[in-house]
Amino acid sequence: MMNYKMNVRYDGTKYDGWQRQGNTQNTIQGKIEAVLGKMLGHKVEVHGSGRTDKGVHAISQTVSFKINTERSCDEIMGYLNEYLPEDVAVTELTEAEERFHARLCAKRKTYVYRIWNSSVHNVFERNYLYAVSEKLNIEQMKKAAKLFEGEHDFLGFSSVKKTKKSTIRTIYKAEVITFGDEIRLVFEGDGFLYNMVRIISGTLLEIGKGIRGEESINEVFETKKRTLAGETLPARGLTLVGVKY
Amino acid sequence: MMNYKMNVRYDGTKYDGWQRQGNTQNTIQGKIEAVLGKMLGHKVEVHGSGRTDKGVHAISQTVSFKINTERSCDEIMGYLNEYLPEDVAVTELTEAEERFHARLCAKRKTYVYRIWNSSVHNVFERNYLYAVSEKLNIEQMKKAAKLFEGEHDFLGFSSVKKTKKSTIRTIYKAEVITFGDEIRLVFEGDGFLYNMVRIISGTLLEIGKGIRGEESINEVFETKKRTLAGETLPARGLTLVGVKY
Repeated sequence: MMNYKMNVRYDGTKYDGWQRQGNTQNTIQGKIEAVLGKMLGHKVEVHGSGRTDKGVHAISQTVSFKINTERSCDEIMGYLNEYLPEDVAVTELTEAEERFHARLCAKRKTYVYRIWNSSVHNVFERNYLYAVSEKLNIEQMKKAAKLFEGEHDFLGFSSVKKTKKSTIRTIYKAEVITFGDEIRLVFEGDGFLYNMVRIISGTLLEIGKGIRGEESINEVFETKKRTLAGETLPARGLTLVGVKY
Repeated sequence: MMNYKMNVRYDGTKYDGWQRQGNTQNTIQGKIEAVLGKMLGHKVEVHGSGRTDKGVHAISQTVSFKINTERSCDEIMGYLNEYLPEDVAVTELTEAEERFHARLCAKRKTYVYRIWNSSVHNVFERNYLYAVSEKLNIEQMKKAAKLFEGEHDFLGFSSVKKTKKSTIRTIYKAEVITFGDEIRLVFEGDGFLYNMVRIISGTLLEIGKGIRGEESINEVFETKKRTLAGETLPARGLTLVGVKY
C-alpha cells in the first residue's frame, strides 16, 4: 500500500459538504471515493483535513488515502481530473510518508469568509460571497477581529452542543482585508469548531453594522453562551483556503 | 420623457440570451423591462447595444431607454439592483442626450472568448470558460489572430444565412493573451455577425491544435463558405466586455 496526499479544490454550492453520509453520494468525499473506486475496481476510503459544511468551498482541502496501484502520481491525478465533476479538481498529488493522515496530522487551517459590500450584485462571483449592502465600519471590524486571536474557549462561538471534548482552540491570525467592495475575513488557527468561522464572521459583521460592540466578544468568551454571539452567516461566503502540516 | 444610458453586467448561464422573445421572460432584456415596468406601473422597452446569445455573459452591455419619472438616476439604479436577480446588475446609469440609442449609436464592441487550457478544472470560473486540455500552439494562434484584423467580408465566419445586408465588418484588434492556464481571445470591432466571435475562436483553436493552418483563414474569406471555417465554440466562454460610442 502506498500513502498519498492530495490537494482538492471545489465549488461547494451543489454539494452536501465534504463528508460522505450513508448513501448520499452528493458529497465531495463521496465523489472522490467513487472515482478512485472506479479506477481500482474496489472501495477506497479517503480522509480530508476536516469536514466542510454543505455549501462551503475549498481552494485547497488536503486529502490522504492509501491504495495499491501501478499508476504514477500524474496518472492518478489525471484520472481523477478526467472523471471528477467540473466543480471539483485535484490540484496536486504526491506520495506521502506512511504515517501521514490529512486530519490527524493537520497543524493549521486557514479559512476566508468573503463579504460583498455593495448594492450592485457581484454577478460573476456571487456564489462565493455573502452580499451585504449596508455601509460597514471596517475599522471597528479590524479592531474587533484582533480580540479573537490567541487561545480561547470558543464554545460560545460554535454550534457545538455540550461536549466532553475540548472546545479550546488557538487562532493565530484574524484579519479583515478589503479589496474594493469586497471584505475578506481571514482566520488561521489550529482548528475550528462546528460553524465557528461563520459565527465569528457574523459577530464581526454585526460589529461593522454598529448593532453590537466589541466588548460583546469577551462576554461570549466568559459566558460561553452561543445566544450572545452573532448570527451564523450563510455557507456560500466561506472557503477553506488551505491546511498546513 | 428622459433618455437614460446604463451599463449592465450579467452571468448569462441561466438565460436565453439578451433579447426578449415573445412570452419567454427568461432573457436579460425581459428581466430589466419587468423591473422597470414594476417601478413605473406600465410597460417599458429597453434597447441593448446588440443581442447576446443564450449563455453568453456581459461585463458591460450598454442599454438605453426613455421613461418619465421623478426618481433620480441613483434611485432608478438602486431600484433595479434591488429587484433584478443576483446574476444581473446595473453598474452605471446616467441621463443621456435625447438622440442616444444603445444599438444605433454603438461604434465599437469588445468581446473576449476565454479558454481554460489545463486538465485541472477551473472550479470557480468554469461557467465563464471553455475548457480544452490539449496542449495548444499559442504562438501560431497569435500569428493567425492578426489575419482577422482589418475590413473583411465575414460571412463565412458567421451563422448568417444568405442576406442582402452587408456582412462586411472591421476588426480593429484581434489578440491572444495568456494568463497562466487561461487563454483570452480578445476582439474589438465595429460589429459582429451572428456567432462570428465563436466561429473565429473555434478556427483559432483548431490552428492552436495543429489541425488546420493559418492559410485556411484566407480561404474562408475568399470562398465565404462557413463549412471551411472552424467549429462554433460553446456560448459559456464568450463575454461582451464593453461597447464604445
